[in-house]
Amino acid sequence: MESNTEQLKWGKTVWKQFSQVRLQSPLIQCITNFVSMDLMANTLLSAGASPAMVHSIEEIPDFTPRVTALCINVGTLSPSSLPAMITAAKICSQLNIPWVLDPVAVSASAFRFDACVQLVGLKPTVVRGNASEIIALSSSSLEASAAKGTDSTHDSMDAVEAAKLLARTSGAIVAVSGATDIVTDGNQVVGAHNGVALMQKITATGCSVTALIAAFVAVDKTNALDAAVSALAVFGVAGELGMKMAKGPASLRMHLIDALYGLDEATLQSHVNITRL
Amino acid sequence: MESNTEQLKWGKTVWKQFSQVRLQSPLIQCITNFVSMDLMANTLLSAGASPAMVHSIEEIPDFTPRVTALCINVGTLSPSSLPAMITAAKICSQLNIPWVLDPVAVSASAFRFDACVQLVGLKPTVVRGNASEIIALSSSSLEASAAKGTDSTHDSMDAVEAAKLLARTSGAIVAVSGATDIVTDGNQVVGAHNGVALMQKITATGCSVTALIAAFVAVDKTNALDAAVSALAVFGVAGELGMKMAKGPASLRMHLIDALYGLDEATLQSHVNITRL
Amino acid sequence: MESNTEQLKWGKTVWKQFSQVRLQSPLIQCITNFVSMDLMANTLLSAGASPAMVHSIEEIPDFTPRVTALCINVGTLSPSSLPAMITAAKICSQLNIPWVLDPVAVSASAFRFDACVQLVGLKPTVVRGNASEIIALSSSSLEASAAKGTDSTHDSMDAVEAAKLLARTSGAIVAVSGATDIVTDGNQVVGAHNGVALMQKITATGCSVTALIAAFVAVDKTNALDAAVSALAVFGVAGELGMKMAKGPASLRMHLIDALYGLDEATLQSHVNITRL
Repeated sequence: MESNTEQLKWGKTVWKQFSQVRLQSPLIQCITNFVSMDLMANTLLSAGASPAMVHSIEEIPDFTPRVTALCINVGTLSPSSLPAMITAAKICSQLNIPWVLDPVAVSASAFRFDACVQLVGLKPTVVRGNASEIIALSSSSLEASAAKGTDSTHDSMDAVEAAKLLARTSGAIVAVSGATDIVTDGNQVVGAHNGVALMQKITATGCSVTALIAAFVAVDKTNALDAAVSALAVFGVAGELGMKMAKGPASLRMHLIDALYGLDEATLQSHVNITRL
Repeated sequence: MESNTEQLKWGKTVWKQFSQVRLQSPLIQCITNFVSMDLMANTLLSAGASPAMVHSIEEIPDFTPRVTALCINVGTLSPSSLPAMITAAKICSQLNIPWVLDPVAVSASAFRFDACVQLVGLKPTVVRGNASEIIALSSSSLEASAAKGTDSTHDSMDAVEAAKLLARTSGAIVAVSGATDIVTDGNQVVGAHNGVALMQKITATGCSVTALIAAFVAVDKTNALDAAVSALAVFGVAGELGMKMAKGPASLRMHLIDALYGLDEATLQSHVNITRL
Repeated sequence: MESNTEQLKWGKTVWKQFSQVRLQSPLIQCITNFVSMDLMANTLLSAGASPAMVHSIEEIPDFTPRVTALCINVGTLSPSSLPAMITAAKICSQLNIPWVLDPVAVSASAFRFDACVQLVGLKPTVVRGNASEIIALSSSSLEASAAKGTDSTHDSMDAVEAAKLLARTSGAIVAVSGATDIVTDGNQVVGAHNGVALMQKITATGCSVTALIAAFVAVDKTNALDAAVSALAVFGVAGELGMKMAKGPASLRMHLIDALYGLDEATLQSHVNITRL
């Protein structure tokens, strides 16, 4: 357990960054899967950001240089969407625009694994996945991984060493979602303990928190580790608040978004639970 | 302010057209972006129309001649979807089937701007956008416009002259969404004042009201201006009714659709707020 | 009317299969339309299954052999998605993995009709559609059918003979959704009477129950007729429970998913209404 002082400090950091998202309304481009687009856009809107689901390679050279941050999600990857992702990621890296990668179901195929490895090589600011995805991505080959679908078969705490390794080799901040969300730069490891288990029974919550990380990194580029922690904490707190009124996964989804929209400083600070690990 | 007589007259018009949508259940083809498909289909169903998200060019020559109206939305435009849009728009223009264009984020790229200009040239019955989109589309070149993402950076009242110009040059009825929704044929300008600001924090509400305009135009082809006004008013009233029970954007989305489904004559007429400008 | 003994027997069968879905969490690949992805994934998650919206042909040879069942839905069919569907269906047939076909709006175009006929030839375990779709698909040519969009213009009871014919010629279990859901293997005909009419005003409920059938067939491959009946009954009961709290189609959608997640044995058994026809 952290000291109260440490928790108070985290509470102030999280609130400060969230306030900046609301104030600046960063433009977040999302090249994402077809399942998550609706919840991801609504998550960004509710948090105060401005989403733009622009994913055509014809538009990226014009549009991507103007965005505040980019979110790439490989959930429904195809040979036509991969070049768009690569082009957008390269533009961001060149222009120092932060970008975040969500390697959904990285082990689903050799095509997807290779695509994710290639994207990691393009210097994402943050990589966020579940434990199975991060373990797979940190290993050097697809064979070493053993995830089935999009659901994790590992606990996030099992992925701490894999996350640190991936962070060191890629230069990215690595976030692992789970009962405890883990965030690491390869050396420091921070645990964000907010959220409720039922969120895993709602499709696209993982994708949406990755987009939220992009919005937080957009307003604090120089401190991506804290930004990722803050986004995970805010989304988790919104889930906890939503859970108080939920009667199942669908009402949780609704109340979570409402709670994210209405979240105030006192409520946030009294719920944030972040520790150094 | 309009006289009570004028408001009563509008109330009757709006209810009459809405009743026809429920009675005739027009078949509305939507070639739209991947973000909005769910809410757009549910908006049409709740209003009594029959949505069909048929967007493949292989199907359009068979399918489009049978539809009552068409809605084209460029939100996630791609080189493969544009020819389908053009083919469907041409069929509608040839067969005198009304069709509606939503130039989402028209300024996002030269590719998108050119596509929208081309589509406007195919004689849409109605064009609906936010103020930034209509201002951009009414200007002769992309450079003259300066919108960032899908959100408007202008108030709808700023776009009245641009809307009139676009209506006159294109022959379309032009609708501008905002705090006051503006509808013009290039001469007359009507303002629909219903709706609540929080609707802008729900993705795809703009797309969905464009589809609703298609459903209203479908049942009153000869009076597209009134049909567009009516659809905007009905959607706005549903938003106001939904807002009474909403605790944030996600519950507003739910209550809005429920309210649209259940909307009765007395409630509609007591809420409709339409004026000549 | 069935005897109480028969109803009790069905109640036990339905509960047993539903419990197995929750216990085994079968991995269900969905190659589906863009409108339904969100509700379909959430339906599967709420029922305890593990959805995977993997639809790219590059991934199918690696991924499909690992899934427990496959759901193919032609709602937004395109020339690029059809080869993926065919490849996945062939893999399933070769490896004895059950797969389910949803021939959405089969009469929308010659392209779609031919695609559905081709898919039916690849030995689906179950075909589920509305009455208009099943009548069209059981006829030998597109001309014989006369559906307009995705909504049925026939009552399910009108489709009993068409369903039996399709079942006998295809070897599939055929399910017809409607006020009474019909399931047949070509000889036996079972009627599942659960559900509420308002479910038809929510987009993707038909698509979602097809995915649920895939999850039920996944855990009882040798008894696909009972599995299809059980899935239809469970979804229908969830709709009835949801309807008690719904104020319109959008709240029904939410409460239905919540009810599906929370459904217990006693409630299920007291609501199941299944008869031999």
